[in-house]
Amino acid sequence: MPAKDLYHNTVKTALIKDGWTILADPLSLKIGGRDLFVDLGAEKVLLAQQKQRTIAVEIKSFLGYSPVSDLEQALGQYLLYEQLLQRQYPHYQLYLAIRLGTYQNFFQEEIVQLVLQGDRIKLLIFDEHEEVITQWIP
Amino acid sequence: MPAKDLYHNTVKTALIKDGWTILADPLSLKIGGRDLFVDLGAEKVLLAQQKQRTIAVEIKSFLGYSPVSDLEQALGQYLLYEQLLQRQYPHYQLYLAIRLGTYQNFFQEEIVQLVLQGDRIKLLIFDEHEEVITQWIP
Repeated sequence: MPAKDLYHNTVKTALIKDGWTILADPLSLKIGGRDLFVDLGAEKVLLAQQKQRTIAVEIKSFLGYSPVSDLEQALGQYLLYEQLLQRQYPHYQLYLAIRLGTYQNFFQEEIVQLVLQGDRIKLLIFDEHEEVITQWIP
Repeated sequence: MPAKDLYHNTVKTALIKDGWTILADPLSLKIGGRDLFVDLGAEKVLLAQQKQRTIAVEIKSFLGYSPVSDLEQALGQYLLYEQLLQRQYPHYQLYLAIRLGTYQNFFQEEIVQLVLQGDRIKLLIFDEHEEVITQWIP
């Protein structure tokens, strides 16, 4: 199994351990004849619920040759999904899920800190070995 | 020459025809030990000046297998550059350059219109056959 899909399942397991119910895997968002999941093919978004709270989770592996390019793709996808969700399901909160190692290393760099300050990205940090969520930001 | 690089030169020619002076090709932006141009490798950003106005131009070919994925990458790169420019060169305006055909087709779809409404993307439309700029939005 490619690592990308592996992390998808890891986050799903971690969410279930944390008391969340998976409502959709993948979450399919349609707009003007396009299905975002089908069109993107790759990175799938999960939908999970706990009590009255529903979250959509974009899992980004950061396994590409350029972490900056991966950051751009993650950022673009996040903003696209956020706008679609605001229109169709305004009470869903969107999270970008990244590995603990990615958070502790690349995400501490100035370039990422700048992006995180400027935009309104919510992060979910997971430990891929323990298959648990270690942090929600904010 | 790959079409991607071809469009880069097309936009450069179109800007010069329109009275702009190319100040940098590519524009190199550095942050915390990373050079965005080197790190990304691919899509280069031009810097051009006319009278007192300076613009940075991100050229996006939209030649990938998924236009939505290309849109995400373009959007992510735009927002990243915008934040870097705001910090380092706040008087530069950033434009996303796309072909007339891309603008007339994919960019009229609901998914792109939603992105353009929600964010503050400035567009430069060029005709790749005539090598001219056809429109600035806004």
